Amino acid sequence: MKRTITYNNLFSFCKNVMKKNNCSNEKAEIVAELLVEADARGIFSHGSARLKRYINHIKDKTIIPEAEPEIIFQTPVSTVLNGNSGLGQYISNKAMTIAINKAQKSGISIVIVKNSNHFGIAGYYSEMIAKKDMIGISLTNTAPLVIPTFGVERVLGTNPISVGIPYSDGIFLLDMATSVISRGKVEQYKRLNQDLDDNWATDKNGDIISNPFEVMELFSNGPYGGILPLGGKFEESGGHKGYGLSLLVDILTGGLSSSKVSKIYNEKNSISHFFAAINPEIFGNKDSIKESVNEIINTVKNSKKEAGEEKIYIHGEKEIERRENSMKYGIELDDNTILLLKKTSEEFDEKLILN
Amino acid sequence: MKRTITYNNLFSFCKNVMKKNNCSNEKAEIVAELLVEADARGIFSHGSARLKRYINHIKDKTIIPEAEPEIIFQTPVSTVLNGNSGLGQYISNKAMTIAINKAQKSGISIVIVKNSNHFGIAGYYSEMIAKKDMIGISLTNTAPLVIPTFGVERVLGTNPISVGIPYSDGIFLLDMATSVISRGKVEQYKRLNQDLDDNWATDKNGDIISNPFEVMELFSNGPYGGILPLGGKFEESGGHKGYGLSLLVDILTGGLSSSKVSKIYNEKNSISHFFAAINPEIFGNKDSIKESVNEIINTVKNSKKEAGEEKIYIHGEKEIERRENSMKYGIELDDNTILLLKKTSEEFDEKLILN
Repeated sequence: MKRTITYNNLFSFCKNVMKKNNCSNEKAEIVAELLVEADARGIFSHGSARLKRYINHIKDKTIIPEAEPEIIFQTPVSTVLNGNSGLGQYISNKAMTIAINKAQKSGISIVIVKNSNHFGIAGYYSEMIAKKDMIGISLTNTAPLVIPTFGVERVLGTNPISVGIPYSDGIFLLDMATSVISRGKVEQYKRLNQDLDDNWATDKNGDIISNPFEVMELFSNGPYGGILPLGGKFEESGGHKGYGLSLLVDILTGGLSSSKVSKIYNEKNSISHFFAAINPEIFGNKDSIKESVNEIINTVKNSKKEAGEEKIYIHGEKEIERRENSMKYGIELDDNTILLLKKTSEEFDEKLILN
Repeated sequence: MKRTITYNNLFSFCKNVMKKNNCSNEKAEIVAELLVEADARGIFSHGSARLKRYINHIKDKTIIPEAEPEIIFQTPVSTVLNGNSGLGQYISNKAMTIAINKAQKSGISIVIVKNSNHFGIAGYYSEMIAKKDMIGISLTNTAPLVIPTFGVERVLGTNPISVGIPYSDGIFLLDMATSVISRGKVEQYKRLNQDLDDNWATDKNGDIISNPFEVMELFSNGPYGGILPLGGKFEESGGHKGYGLSLLVDILTGGLSSSKVSKIYNEKNSISHFFAAINPEIFGNKDSIKESVNEIINTVKNSKKEAGEEKIYIHGEKEIERRENSMKYGIELDDNTILLLKKTSEEFDEKLILN
């Protein structure tokens, strides 16, 4: 049986632990919200299991919680922020305010952030923009875990792409790693002692491997072997497309921000983000556009399902359903996460109230 | 042995045939250029083999070659064009002029086109923008051939995504269908009498099929069964990601242009495009950004290759190599295309000069 915790209890716990680690109340609340939102939506790889990693990064000065982002370049449609190695979630929240304000005035705006840190779930930010009735885009580079087509070296991140688009009945919220699987899935299969599918990972020679223990070992031994891009190893099944999307994200984040030390080169202090907000009013009547998007979505939703399938999901819907359940019955956490949280609870003398 | 034709001879042939089908000299040249560029780059699915299809569409009035696009809504950063069922390539060229001019003034611009027709290779337009030292994005909806995750009905297009980004040594040019394979690949496998890979297509019950004859038959018999999205049938291998990218393109094209009759609903006169131009100068010094993008690209290019692989390709490079060969040795055309061109040559009494 899985243990659950209420949204508020998990939020308070995360917030108070962050406050005990040199974060202001405002910053601690933002980080806590991102963590709890991920767990509530079932995206556990980005949930409270990461709390301890953030604290470790504060300790080793990868994250400087006191740092404030500063604008280093701007136009009416663009802003470049230096995150100064601060908290990724806090910097990205500041970026949202700027992106939304500028798009409300200019119609479109792009905010690029350099020298940031892990910002949580990419979809949180594109959804923030979509909730303001605009199209939101959120991209980030990440730790290099992914192999380009014809290569054997991990030079690409799992580099997620998220786009949020409001329609009459909800928000289309795409939030996808550009790799075929995430590191989290490898860890999950390792815990379950289950083989990976073919075409998910290759070893240092480029041969496909399916043992999750072997894949995790690659990550701690040199730069060779790792996860494959969306589409897998071969061009035939579209592996070069996933590779292209991942490289695109690296270019739009690290490249456009002139980070030079993109995540590709350097593990520390070099995470970059790309955010865009597009006000649909620049294309005509907002409500008519939302209605038109609704029609497309309904056509897909109402198309014929495979026997045995209850529903054709629109992106974001599964996470909303999961979140509703989490609010009603508590957030389910796995043993591993609970163990991590309990250790953190002891270390920082902060009570963890499970259901 | 494959027959070849010079770039100029194929261009003149296509142009003259289009002129004999109610196209002005300017319009005929634009369509011819798109067709010949596709063949020269090895993208035969969008090359001169399509010439006859365009002519058929002019005959059945899907394409109105005399039609001029008109601006129906605009702001300093956006334009909505009604293509009035004209030639997709001509409309899109007009859209490029607008997108580039507005991005030069405002920093960013988006042009959305409704009531257009097939515009050729998506990458041609993003490359046009990239050649002006800007980031170019080009999207289009297409005929519905693709099945959403958990569905069995073809409600999505192969909906390509193309992004062109200039860097010091060239142009990163991603141009990818969001489906795992194109209709062209199914046709190619049919010609070779070769089985498709698993996870490329499903039948009307949602079962995976590998017989290309069976897949082609589905396309002419009702709306069920078809090509799978990038990532394949299952969520495990990321099929919902390809599905999400395809739906995203449908929303950004048909949805934002309030086409209502998106390509999803209606085969005729309902193709929509989305183009964006982003001037990198809104993020700082243009040359420094190009240099920074260059560094990322070189890191990937120079990373360790799998034994037996000569090169890690950057997107666009293969097509440039192919184009250089086509200019030197002539454009290679397959028997099927030559047969089609010969028939067209007879029908319109226009000489076809092969090497």
